[in-house]
Amino acid sequence: MPPSDLHHLYRPSLALLTDLYQVTMAYGYWKSGAADRPAVFQLTFRRPPFQGGFTIACGMACAIDYLAHLRFDADDLHYLAGLRGVDERPLFEPAFLDYLGQLAFRCDVDAVREGDVVFPHEPLIRVQGPLLQAQLIESALLTFTGFPSLVATKAARICLAARGDAVLEFGLRRAQGIDGALAASRAAYIGGCAATSNLLAGRVFDIPVRGTHAHSWIMSFGDERQAFEEYARAMPNNCVFLVDTYDTLSGVRHAIEVGHWLRSQGHELLGIRLDSGDLAYLSIEARKMLDEAGFPNAAITASNELDEHLIANLKEQGATICLWGVGTRLVTAYDQPALGVVYKLTALQEPDGSWRPCIKLSEQPLKISTPGRLQVRRFEQAGQYVGDLIHDLDLGPGDQPILVDPLDDTRRIAVPADAASRELLRPVFRGGQLVDRPPAAAMAREHAASELQRFAASVKRFANPHRYPVGLERRLQQLKRQLILKARGHRE
Amino acid sequence: MPPSDLHHLYRPSLALLTDLYQVTMAYGYWKSGAADRPAVFQLTFRRPPFQGGFTIACGMACAIDYLAHLRFDADDLHYLAGLRGVDERPLFEPAFLDYLGQLAFRCDVDAVREGDVVFPHEPLIRVQGPLLQAQLIESALLTFTGFPSLVATKAARICLAARGDAVLEFGLRRAQGIDGALAASRAAYIGGCAATSNLLAGRVFDIPVRGTHAHSWIMSFGDERQAFEEYARAMPNNCVFLVDTYDTLSGVRHAIEVGHWLRSQGHELLGIRLDSGDLAYLSIEARKMLDEAGFPNAAITASNELDEHLIANLKEQGATICLWGVGTRLVTAYDQPALGVVYKLTALQEPDGSWRPCIKLSEQPLKISTPGRLQVRRFEQAGQYVGDLIHDLDLGPGDQPILVDPLDDTRRIAVPADAASRELLRPVFRGGQLVDRPPAAAMAREHAASELQRFAASVKRFANPHRYPVGLERRLQQLKRQLILKARGHRE
Repeated sequence: MPPSDLHHLYRPSLALLTDLYQVTMAYGYWKSGAADRPAVFQLTFRRPPFQGGFTIACGMACAIDYLAHLRFDADDLHYLAGLRGVDERPLFEPAFLDYLGQLAFRCDVDAVREGDVVFPHEPLIRVQGPLLQAQLIESALLTFTGFPSLVATKAARICLAARGDAVLEFGLRRAQGIDGALAASRAAYIGGCAATSNLLAGRVFDIPVRGTHAHSWIMSFGDERQAFEEYARAMPNNCVFLVDTYDTLSGVRHAIEVGHWLRSQGHELLGIRLDSGDLAYLSIEARKMLDEAGFPNAAITASNELDEHLIANLKEQGATICLWGVGTRLVTAYDQPALGVVYKLTALQEPDGSWRPCIKLSEQPLKISTPGRLQVRRFEQAGQYVGDLIHDLDLGPGDQPILVDPLDDTRRIAVPADAASRELLRPVFRGGQLVDRPPAAAMAREHAASELQRFAASVKRFANPHRYPVGLERRLQQLKRQLILKARGHRE
Repeated sequence: MPPSDLHHLYRPSLALLTDLYQVTMAYGYWKSGAADRPAVFQLTFRRPPFQGGFTIACGMACAIDYLAHLRFDADDLHYLAGLRGVDERPLFEPAFLDYLGQLAFRCDVDAVREGDVVFPHEPLIRVQGPLLQAQLIESALLTFTGFPSLVATKAARICLAARGDAVLEFGLRRAQGIDGALAASRAAYIGGCAATSNLLAGRVFDIPVRGTHAHSWIMSFGDERQAFEEYARAMPNNCVFLVDTYDTLSGVRHAIEVGHWLRSQGHELLGIRLDSGDLAYLSIEARKMLDEAGFPNAAITASNELDEHLIANLKEQGATICLWGVGTRLVTAYDQPALGVVYKLTALQEPDGSWRPCIKLSEQPLKISTPGRLQVRRFEQAGQYVGDLIHDLDLGPGDQPILVDPLDDTRRIAVPADAASRELLRPVFRGGQLVDRPPAAAMAREHAASELQRFAASVKRFANPHRYPVGLERRLQQLKRQLILKARGHRE
């Protein structure tokens, strides 16, 4: 199965994976003659999650796969034909359903790469095409990117806390539905996890899988040492013993005894797992026992409601854990289970071919969208990223880039003259045709890791992270300001 | 598509929707000759979510569908055959994969009904059958029931706060994956929501769908009144106008103007939607304007990060909202995104046919499982539920039921002698054959609503809810105590 190919996973067409109002609006655009008017929508988010300083973009491959296969099949149309208004008459007339049945995706789509490090105000996806089509895909694009970006970011934070130790994702049992689990396993891997326990995710997305045994294995034999022996006999090349079913340090002794037997058979004890109690103290004691018994390479895995803060705390206490099993807190993004992704209309083409920028006002400045057809230019110096310029395709990036703070236009940062740069949004669809197939999860994972290294540690710390410089290009900022003033009935 | 029939939704077999360690343990049981030893596992949870007093059981229909179709297909076996141990040799020998390929589910399963109100310590599902099989299904059963129970409970709380007003679930865009959204829409409906915005959920689970238009509809026309008119022309039988794109009360005036036009065409303005600002004040003003203009039946819908607490607060302020659109906070169970569901081995059959109760110790009393093969007897008096007795199938419920507090055995409550009772767990599979097909989502929804009415208001309140009496039967409590003392090396 190709990585992230949803249409090998789901039987029905995913065209109905949308909110009803997208289809009622599509109907309205079709009826009013506005269906084909060229429009631009952009997907952004408002704040980095977990009170952090960065976000890992994730889910683009699934979103792209969804767009590449977007078709209303006969079952979809039959369902829509059955929807009724308050007067019990059909919501949609048959000619519209015929139109939907013929619909072929014709938009241009540009997107950041999976694994890119992104910031508020920056478009992650820009869609340009017929108003009806660009609107219709809103709900699915938000679902496909919001949650994965959240989990990839959580995973990256946990991996930072683990300081190079491998992090294993064990979250299936607490995940939010089948695909809540699958999407989380994939995003956690891209964010830096080394493996998942979820076999279906392993198979579908080609992610390494890990796992050995649970407490129930021990309980079913009653005697812990016998249980380890039976496991070692069955699977001598995958022995990580869970040692805390009865008494943890007795468990370590039993693991060592069976480790000696394994060695006599030409195998090695891979390690032990701690799942309760004082993980700092127990890991230090267990390490001593394993080392003294001649098992310096046996790894200590820990699990039990871990997150980046607990792992950092255990590291500070000198815990000798070198593999971290993380479940609930990762796959549900426990301390912030939703990322505020939004998808806004930012430009409409006029009959003369020019683009009219659109803006949505709000009482909260953070919620006011940036108008135009936007691109992000990222600057770097000596291998480190130094700032991002959000600019408009029509206005251009300007000659001497100045980053104007999107929320306070009196704060401005000049980009060093010798900084190199690249554009973050890359073409994915042109006229509805896929022009750049997204890389597999393993490639996105490598990309995320190498990109993260190019940001200052201060941006990645957990407490009061430094705000990485992101600004609007000056003329874009002036345009936004004029549009806000006009909409509020004022002048400069 | 039959309601909740996952196998019409997912292409691949779901046999791999499990943690690797379930399959490595299965291999160990198979190798050690323990695969067919009869065992009992029970699925429970530890605390009602959201600091509440009750939980709605949900997800059983999907879990049952998963069990009814549990088969390892050729692709699954091919994937498992490719997994390697640390020595690069296969984890599983071919004869075991043949065994898995032949595996036919043979367990007895008893479960509460979807929509039942349940409490900590009570088994929601009891599985009795071959150790290998009963263990293998753990991860999927936890995924299928934990998250839906959480969302159904959240929905029930939100509906309680709405005091009979309809609650609409609008969460797709912030949901945790495709099935995170589908599972959430289904659970929200069972918990009491009246409809969803998610068309795929509507189609798959036969849930009513609702929706009209977004801010982008207004922005694409520029002029708000024209935008409403165009919408009304396109879809006169589904007119709920979103009035806050520019200025809310101007928006209400425009909605009224178009409402008059609708009426002249033989249609009615269904209402308006508020999505920002002071919802209490704006709804009161909008209500006055609508009433004065002759639209007393036009409903006011509100949305914007709502949950049960905000809705209760708006009600207290006299808000005239009568339809509530709830998204992120509902579908992600924002303030507690995971329910601590667990699945524990609680009994093993001895060679003589008797059942040996099993217990898993923990430093935390709440985490110690209750041993045995358990059933829950619920007592009622005058149409109100008065207490639940957890009893063992072998020990029986006793003659004069006394509920012994599971965490403090000096606290006991006697059940009134004239209380009627019923058993909560009902047979679902016998010998692997489905004996009771679960009801559709709409039936589960009705069941939840009527069951909730039979609990005292004090159990359902949000602040410091009353603890509904749930106790262990006396001999069961004594058995549990003896097992704990023995495991800790003590005597009475």
